[in-house]
Amino acid sequence: MKKNILVGQSGGPTAVINSSLYGVIDGWMTHSHMMGTVYGMVNGVEGFLSGNYVDLLDTLSSEDLQLLKQTPAAYLGSCRFKLPEHLDASVYGLLFEKFKALDIGICLYIGGNDSMDTVDKLSRCAKLLHEDIVFIGVPKTIDNDLPVTDHTPGYGSAAKYVASTVREISLDAAVYQKPAVTIVELMGRHAGWVTAASCLARRFPEDNPLLIYMPEVPFEMERFFKDLEEALAKQPNVVVCVSEGIQDRSGRLICEYSNEAQVDNFGHKMLTGCGKLLESYVRNRFQVKVRSVELNVNQRCSGLLASGRDVEEAVEAGRTAVKLGLLGETGKMVTFKRRIGAGYKVEYGATDVGNVCNKEKKFPVEWITENHRDIRPEFLSYGLPLIQGEVKHVTEHGLPRYISRE
Amino acid sequence: MKKNILVGQSGGPTAVINSSLYGVIDGWMTHSHMMGTVYGMVNGVEGFLSGNYVDLLDTLSSEDLQLLKQTPAAYLGSCRFKLPEHLDASVYGLLFEKFKALDIGICLYIGGNDSMDTVDKLSRCAKLLHEDIVFIGVPKTIDNDLPVTDHTPGYGSAAKYVASTVREISLDAAVYQKPAVTIVELMGRHAGWVTAASCLARRFPEDNPLLIYMPEVPFEMERFFKDLEEALAKQPNVVVCVSEGIQDRSGRLICEYSNEAQVDNFGHKMLTGCGKLLESYVRNRFQVKVRSVELNVNQRCSGLLASGRDVEEAVEAGRTAVKLGLLGETGKMVTFKRRIGAGYKVEYGATDVGNVCNKEKKFPVEWITENHRDIRPEFLSYGLPLIQGEVKHVTEHGLPRYISRE
Repeated sequence: MKKNILVGQSGGPTAVINSSLYGVIDGWMTHSHMMGTVYGMVNGVEGFLSGNYVDLLDTLSSEDLQLLKQTPAAYLGSCRFKLPEHLDASVYGLLFEKFKALDIGICLYIGGNDSMDTVDKLSRCAKLLHEDIVFIGVPKTIDNDLPVTDHTPGYGSAAKYVASTVREISLDAAVYQKPAVTIVELMGRHAGWVTAASCLARRFPEDNPLLIYMPEVPFEMERFFKDLEEALAKQPNVVVCVSEGIQDRSGRLICEYSNEAQVDNFGHKMLTGCGKLLESYVRNRFQVKVRSVELNVNQRCSGLLASGRDVEEAVEAGRTAVKLGLLGETGKMVTFKRRIGAGYKVEYGATDVGNVCNKEKKFPVEWITENHRDIRPEFLSYGLPLIQGEVKHVTEHGLPRYISRE
Repeated sequence: MKKNILVGQSGGPTAVINSSLYGVIDGWMTHSHMMGTVYGMVNGVEGFLSGNYVDLLDTLSSEDLQLLKQTPAAYLGSCRFKLPEHLDASVYGLLFEKFKALDIGICLYIGGNDSMDTVDKLSRCAKLLHEDIVFIGVPKTIDNDLPVTDHTPGYGSAAKYVASTVREISLDAAVYQKPAVTIVELMGRHAGWVTAASCLARRFPEDNPLLIYMPEVPFEMERFFKDLEEALAKQPNVVVCVSEGIQDRSGRLICEYSNEAQVDNFGHKMLTGCGKLLESYVRNRFQVKVRSVELNVNQRCSGLLASGRDVEEAVEAGRTAVKLGLLGETGKMVTFKRRIGAGYKVEYGATDVGNVCNKEKKFPVEWITENHRDIRPEFLSYGLPLIQGEVKHVTEHGLPRYISRE
């Protein structure tokens, strides 16, 4: 019996989703004497449905594999596609036909909450149809909002990017004598994990960022002005980090405060983040120089500033998924359990994907200071181990070598 | 006769302005048996005028010096201060008193066009007053817009940051199947050198960024729409790089197209860059997903992605300034001359600061394609050597160690 393995990537890009793909291929090559190949869905389950896939063992040389490990974003392409809730022959029937045609025994899906929903549905459908195929999820998201697992591949790199970049922005902000406020807007609409990482930028107590605002607790404009006034009294250059998802007590997003009036002179609506909005509020309230910086997509796709540990763990998550599949497990997601004791150590396990999909793990409110403007030290021992280690990149002409499908 | 050296930093931060400061200190320590010290102006000539300076040999250990070399922004703090055109005793008199009080024989100023104006005025004033002190400028600007010199320390690192970041953004942009446009706004209001560096991001012909718009040639909205239409016909994911300073045929900045209407619902004026503006124009014109990314201050202050060659050359520029000062030269700026021949090699020289100050070296129009939407290959052999080499950083807790004055 010859069985192949199929792997897909889904949801937003991260710095290490390809490291997990590498882990899957590497795990399959070491573990299996089954001679099957590794197929990759192109553009996730959506692309696969329309017949788009690639034979990865055929396509990738061993040199390519090393490059894959260091390449950010999603080599296989991604999708945002929700499988139907009810059995729909045109979708599920077609999918399982395609699985059979390629002789797939194991299907792995690398993604976040929504992607785990796909794993859940496919594994339940396989049981219903008595199909001999198992489905395993490999966690991935910079948001770090998957339940059960201690953390998620992608987060460590995003956290490292944010911490080091905010450290550099703080140095940049400090060069002039005149009072100035720099507002940095960070990713994570519902969960503040990425924003919290900005506190790791501090080199000493009272170092910037002096203020950090999270989406898990209400943001009050007047209180923010007071916080800022206090901070400016302490030092002339204040760096403020805010989550893109900060909201007021009524649950209204701060970035929505200006939606109505945001039109250009052709009447086009302009979209503005909360950083830009706070910039204008501060400029009008305080007589200081203000600027805002939106770190934007580089938070999730910077391979150059990736965390070495995150890359290693992402690889291991891919390998673990292969092992679970070979053991015949299905409907599971790979999890990380942090071992208690001296030194950081992680154990790889699994949980029923139903415990994860469509659920969110928010940043613990207990780790936010009572005045809602900073992160408590408890987060440091959680976050610091995740940003350790650098990646030594293969370069060409002074730039990192990255691999693409075409 | 005991003479000391004084050094200041001025203008916007770069990744390597502190490398030049390191070069000054290192150069002074190796070259001089004069036993004098190195004083640093705090916040440039403006801070120095109000009595703010520091003894650098006293303050910095040899370990600190190594950290200084890798720390971005401006260790000594900066200023934007123009010395008066006419002899003003309250300024020049005070300054030369202070020089005398500290027994300064050489004064070095690290900065761009405006800072060279300071060097020019001080050296002319010293001659007039028969003061025994020389003034040398050390070039610094990410804009690369100083005349005479082949290039300027700070540019190579900014170019490397832009090239590698745009490469990563292009990977991020390519993960979904649906047509999408990503607009990246880059620094350089008058000169497009930094924007041009985005073409180095390409890994193969027809790789993103497909379109690059420079401030040296007029930007026409309708032509841009046509360019974009063509690009989208070729591939679904198009990355466009634009200089913040693109302007139309009449000289009006594109970012000013929306000034009037940019108010939030409290009537506050919102400032918007041309990237954000083009984003809204494209969204309304094309039925595609659009986003804009402003690379912002990290272009100039990313120590982590600095060019190794840029750091070395910045150090050497500092050392060269010390040598020139010890030779009794004054009113000069250190220059780089690229040697013709196989392999990249630079010679350090000097030019009268009057040839540089208040002048701008624009990006050569001959290096922009005739259709005004790309950079010609001639730029590659100019730009590529400047982004070579990485910096091995001293780290702590997974982040680069950077040094501050306080």
